[in-house]
Amino acid sequence: MTLTVLGISGSLRKGSFNSAALRAAVELAPEGLAVEPLGIGDIPLYNEDVRSQGLPAPVQSLRDALKRADGVLIVTPEYNYSVPGVLKNAIDWASRPPEQPFDRKPLAIMSASTGQLGGARAQYHLRQVFVALNARVLNRPEIMIAQAAGKFDESGRLADEPTREFIRKLLGALKSVIEERR
Amino acid sequence: MTLTVLGISGSLRKGSFNSAALRAAVELAPEGLAVEPLGIGDIPLYNEDVRSQGLPAPVQSLRDALKRADGVLIVTPEYNYSVPGVLKNAIDWASRPPEQPFDRKPLAIMSASTGQLGGARAQYHLRQVFVALNARVLNRPEIMIAQAAGKFDESGRLADEPTREFIRKLLGALKSVIEERR
Amino acid sequence: MTLTVLGISGSLRKGSFNSAALRAAVELAPEGLAVEPLGIGDIPLYNEDVRSQGLPAPVQSLRDALKRADGVLIVTPEYNYSVPGVLKNAIDWASRPPEQPFDRKPLAIMSASTGQLGGARAQYHLRQVFVALNARVLNRPEIMIAQAAGKFDESGRLADEPTREFIRKLLGALKSVIEERR
Amino acid sequence: MTLTVLGISGSLRKGSFNSAALRAAVELAPEGLAVEPLGIGDIPLYNEDVRSQGLPAPVQSLRDALKRADGVLIVTPEYNYSVPGVLKNAIDWASRPPEQPFDRKPLAIMSASTGQLGGARAQYHLRQVFVALNARVLNRPEIMIAQAAGKFDESGRLADEPTREFIRKLLGALKSVIEERR
Repeated sequence: MTLTVLGISGSLRKGSFNSAALRAAVELAPEGLAVEPLGIGDIPLYNEDVRSQGLPAPVQSLRDALKRADGVLIVTPEYNYSVPGVLKNAIDWASRPPEQPFDRKPLAIMSASTGQLGGARAQYHLRQVFVALNARVLNRPEIMIAQAAGKFDESGRLADEPTREFIRKLLGALKSVIEERR
Repeated sequence: MTLTVLGISGSLRKGSFNSAALRAAVELAPEGLAVEPLGIGDIPLYNEDVRSQGLPAPVQSLRDALKRADGVLIVTPEYNYSVPGVLKNAIDWASRPPEQPFDRKPLAIMSASTGQLGGARAQYHLRQVFVALNARVLNRPEIMIAQAAGKFDESGRLADEPTREFIRKLLGALKSVIEERR
Repeated sequence: MTLTVLGISGSLRKGSFNSAALRAAVELAPEGLAVEPLGIGDIPLYNEDVRSQGLPAPVQSLRDALKRADGVLIVTPEYNYSVPGVLKNAIDWASRPPEQPFDRKPLAIMSASTGQLGGARAQYHLRQVFVALNARVLNRPEIMIAQAAGKFDESGRLADEPTREFIRKLLGALKSVIEERR
Repeated sequence: MTLTVLGISGSLRKGSFNSAALRAAVELAPEGLAVEPLGIGDIPLYNEDVRSQGLPAPVQSLRDALKRADGVLIVTPEYNYSVPGVLKNAIDWASRPPEQPFDRKPLAIMSASTGQLGGARAQYHLRQVFVALNARVLNRPEIMIAQAAGKFDESGRLADEPTREFIRKLLGALKSVIEERR
């Protein structure tokens, strides 16, 4: 049986390096594990008054996909030394009652940036968020794709082989944690 | 001449304790300083492809208001041990080129929550964001309104006198930093 | 067979609330699990030049105890919104080559303070440290003993029953993770 | 009159890149500002029982030097994704009653590491510490000397010209903040 990992990119930009890194993860997934991307561009701004009236359809879809998935892969840029509002907003919607689909869920994080730190600051903030949500976040490998502009080709394919190998390892580790959980 | 402080609440909920705390700040501002709230509920999800085509009107309004203001007051809940996506998204939009209106801007932070920590974790993440944006964030007083449900009355007025006094002090300190800057 | 958990207090003060909370943990450990405190007051300041000449005896003892232990419990005050230097120094010594005894080790964190936040800020910094060290840190329950002065009696015994129950739960959760690992 | 900046290295290792970067700062200080290094290798482990009996001599020296100084420059490695225990321990001692010498003090941070992040994670933890201590920490420039092994020559002199220029800028900015304060 194939395990499924829901893949979320923190960027809405078409040419996003992070969305491209997520596509690479789809391609590099080990046998028996499928990474399935889901967009978050249709999710409205979180408003508790709205939520208490019923979940908007794109939020319901996100939550359903999270519940079904055996694990989660987040691939995110860093905005202003932290998590993009767009991504945090999706997480805020996904995590509110009645259920909390991140609970005990195996979860891996990657980030890419054009700078030197590769999104590291966003990753540590995100880790704190997932303490709140009781996800089972992998410690390693930490993938921070620095100077991303030089690592993807014209077509948006991740061309850097060492980074591809890191992604293989991350997905392998995620698969192990999922299997250990079952 | 009256100094102006742009006030932003991180919650869109009508009955928000944080929006109520911001209203209290409007009322408690010292002579010579006016706190002027601005809503962020109309700001779309950040998308660089959209931005490069021109700023959406609500984003332009936010940026104009930030540029005009002598200081900024952020009053925010904590969602999932961090900054609400809604607030971070507004900051992400406000801070992108061409100008960066938070640069060197005096800025104060408050938070309220129904729990025991009063939003502390959101505040420290926000502080890191404003290192990126080179704002001049006040260290003190730190206002974390814990167990907020007991501190506001039925009409949403901040009834807790010690908290009101802290807010007076925070706004006084913000005014001093603004004046020192001029 | 009894599982062992190495207990470390981040405070050297005799009357420390955190050392008292660690003693409570010794007392409250579930059947089949023993919490064994180890002092860190004899560990010298970390210096790589010293380390490369051979480990000082108290460091070797700490490392041996960590290696033998099935899990770790850290009980720490917060100093200046972060981890006490004393505790961080012990971790710095314990984690250097040749072995790294925190690797994959189940680990739980508690904190106590006389203030309102109960040491929360130290806990989140410590969590980041243990990402580096690849420990298996429990997400829950998070025990932050606020206003500690009112929760211990004259003899330094933890008298607050809800806190005692939280500690029982934390140790039960730690035991489960240890068993799941085996 | 010459302004003085107390310089503290977070590493006790003789060949430390961070101590070498601090020596570079001494050399690169702008006219009218002198960076004066002070060692922290003699400071004992913090213990409140000891403190309440009177300050150990090396602690008193550190506190006196901090009080006299117009500003502070911290140059630190990152240990385990955070501040070295050795440095945090010195700060813990320096900041306890009766006086608190970091209060309102202009302060700049630099870090160096052999890895890719250049000590970034230690810097953000340190920034949170100095919120507690109400220092006036510069936002910019942020100097994170990555892959440090290639930037210093055999004699321990900082050879990388762009980094030297960043240090000049940082010290120039620190000088401006000190002057603005007076």
